[in-house]
Amino acid sequence: MASPKLPPPGVRWTGGQRGFLKVLDQTELPARVRWRSCRHPRDVFDAIRRLQVRGAPLIGIAAAYGMVLAARRCRTHREFERAGARLIASRPTAVNLAWGVKRMLSLQTLDPRALLVEAMRIHAEDRSACARIGRYAYLLLKEPVLTHCNAGSLATGGAGTALSGIYEALSRRGKAWVFATETRPLFQGARLTAWELSRAGADVTLLVDGAAAGLLASGRIRSVIVGADRIAANGDVANKVGTYGLALAAREHGVPFYVAAPISTFDPDTPSGKGIRIEQRDAGEVLSPAGRRVAARGIGVWNPAFDVTPAALVTAIITEAGVVKRPTAGGIRRLLRRGGR
Amino acid sequence: MASPKLPPPGVRWTGGQRGFLKVLDQTELPARVRWRSCRHPRDVFDAIRRLQVRGAPLIGIAAAYGMVLAARRCRTHREFERAGARLIASRPTAVNLAWGVKRMLSLQTLDPRALLVEAMRIHAEDRSACARIGRYAYLLLKEPVLTHCNAGSLATGGAGTALSGIYEALSRRGKAWVFATETRPLFQGARLTAWELSRAGADVTLLVDGAAAGLLASGRIRSVIVGADRIAANGDVANKVGTYGLALAAREHGVPFYVAAPISTFDPDTPSGKGIRIEQRDAGEVLSPAGRRVAARGIGVWNPAFDVTPAALVTAIITEAGVVKRPTAGGIRRLLRRGGR
Repeated sequence: MASPKLPPPGVRWTGGQRGFLKVLDQTELPARVRWRSCRHPRDVFDAIRRLQVRGAPLIGIAAAYGMVLAARRCRTHREFERAGARLIASRPTAVNLAWGVKRMLSLQTLDPRALLVEAMRIHAEDRSACARIGRYAYLLLKEPVLTHCNAGSLATGGAGTALSGIYEALSRRGKAWVFATETRPLFQGARLTAWELSRAGADVTLLVDGAAAGLLASGRIRSVIVGADRIAANGDVANKVGTYGLALAAREHGVPFYVAAPISTFDPDTPSGKGIRIEQRDAGEVLSPAGRRVAARGIGVWNPAFDVTPAALVTAIITEAGVVKRPTAGGIRRLLRRGGR
Repeated sequence: MASPKLPPPGVRWTGGQRGFLKVLDQTELPARVRWRSCRHPRDVFDAIRRLQVRGAPLIGIAAAYGMVLAARRCRTHREFERAGARLIASRPTAVNLAWGVKRMLSLQTLDPRALLVEAMRIHAEDRSACARIGRYAYLLLKEPVLTHCNAGSLATGGAGTALSGIYEALSRRGKAWVFATETRPLFQGARLTAWELSRAGADVTLLVDGAAAGLLASGRIRSVIVGADRIAANGDVANKVGTYGLALAAREHGVPFYVAAPISTFDPDTPSGKGIRIEQRDAGEVLSPAGRRVAARGIGVWNPAFDVTPAALVTAIITEAGVVKRPTAGGIRRLLRRGGR
């Protein structure tokens, strides 16, 4: 069986030790495959802020490479720390970003060579974490699978988190059956998930976010899987806005609801979802879908990037260090110890 | 207190007995206020089919006027019945459409004058039904109110169903506070509800459909109100896709969930929601939001126009004949008797 055709990775370091970071501009997909060069940490900050590079694991990797670029411009470790703090501010909710920066800082060096080795290690670790998540997810998922947003190859350094089980199915059986929500306001489902899965050979059906509850009620869906931007110590999950409603509907209809994420997504310092700060993003994303003004004038906008799904709605969290069923604070502590965090 | 500024009605008969129907093309709102002339029943069929005129009560009214146009072209009542059946086929889910056509047929005449009087009576009855619904709704609603799709002035012959309570608040207190979901795929919330309510003086905040569950979890919303396209004998409600997920989230957070509809929306012949046929609409609505291609190529689309909310999730159904709390088949039968159906 041929391996499924993975999309290009979302970031690529090029030119060795004196090189720079190239990021695939995801805001232009699927219409254009355009790479942007980041030679300055501010370029990485901008690419993350503008969602040209997105997906919690991938922005952790991008930030690690951004720290390589930053180190070239720093004379003291203090300056290096400040550069890290600036990078973290680009997306406050995603914990992988802070995790990637902190791991680079923990080397306690400004040596670009050592830092590049570490960034590449973070990248490679994520790739192998995705593969392990995929093997666990494959065993749990029943098709058709419903997914939200994009937690695929484009969101990680490998085959994705939520979608890695789909790639595993494609590589084992040559087929997979997925329903994808379009994921307003930025259409990551319609643009990214549909693109990467259909070119890999999966059967993809797109729906608007509001149609998911009725689809679950219809009995067509056998499992739901999503990624995560941050998981609190008790298992509450911050993920793309719309995830929580999906979880409520999945529970109502007895459909398993899985969260797939590398252990870098856990935030043991945040006891529960209540402590997770949710970014509000630009009103324009809502007023002008795909850049075209649709909404009436003279109104306000409520545009949170994420919502919080309580642990009680999560059937299992799937990580590279194993699966936590019916997640609790104790189960997550044991998992993180096993994973070396 | 000045009355709120109602938007133009969605349809207007012009030219008296030899006249024709003008419909406000809602697909062009809010960018353009354009009226289309319907001189042939097929024009009415097309306007309904293309959603230029939409909203369950309003298409019942449009269909009644369409029957006036049809009568001019019919020589036998048999032909007139066939013209009615064709009109009904334009939107299979909305029961008001069939109701309007049947009421016109029940006159057992082809006399255009008598038929025009009846169509105008249907129109006027809906206007006064909206006003009565508004007074009941005003007493029940606590603000801020969350609504979905557009069940306002643009969807009816009067001040709306779900939104009539908001207009009542505006006329009594001069202000109202509403959150509106954008309502993919056709953005009726962003385009129509936001437009008509903000020009009437309400404070309107727009959100994507996926953000509603998190908004309800945040405790900001004190009541939810929606319209209906068809209500089964047991109180199950077919309404714009996305309504069901909203109802699940409202129940989860103890927020009252109201349905407002004229009694012409009830379908006593359909025992429960299971018997309601749900239209699948064009894939293009999902693939190309606001007419601009966003989604990847080579994928399928699942695009139901409606979903079904079980009666158990409905706090009350508000009609011009009264309010049914915790709707049951018995309560609805009593209501319909009271309303003369």
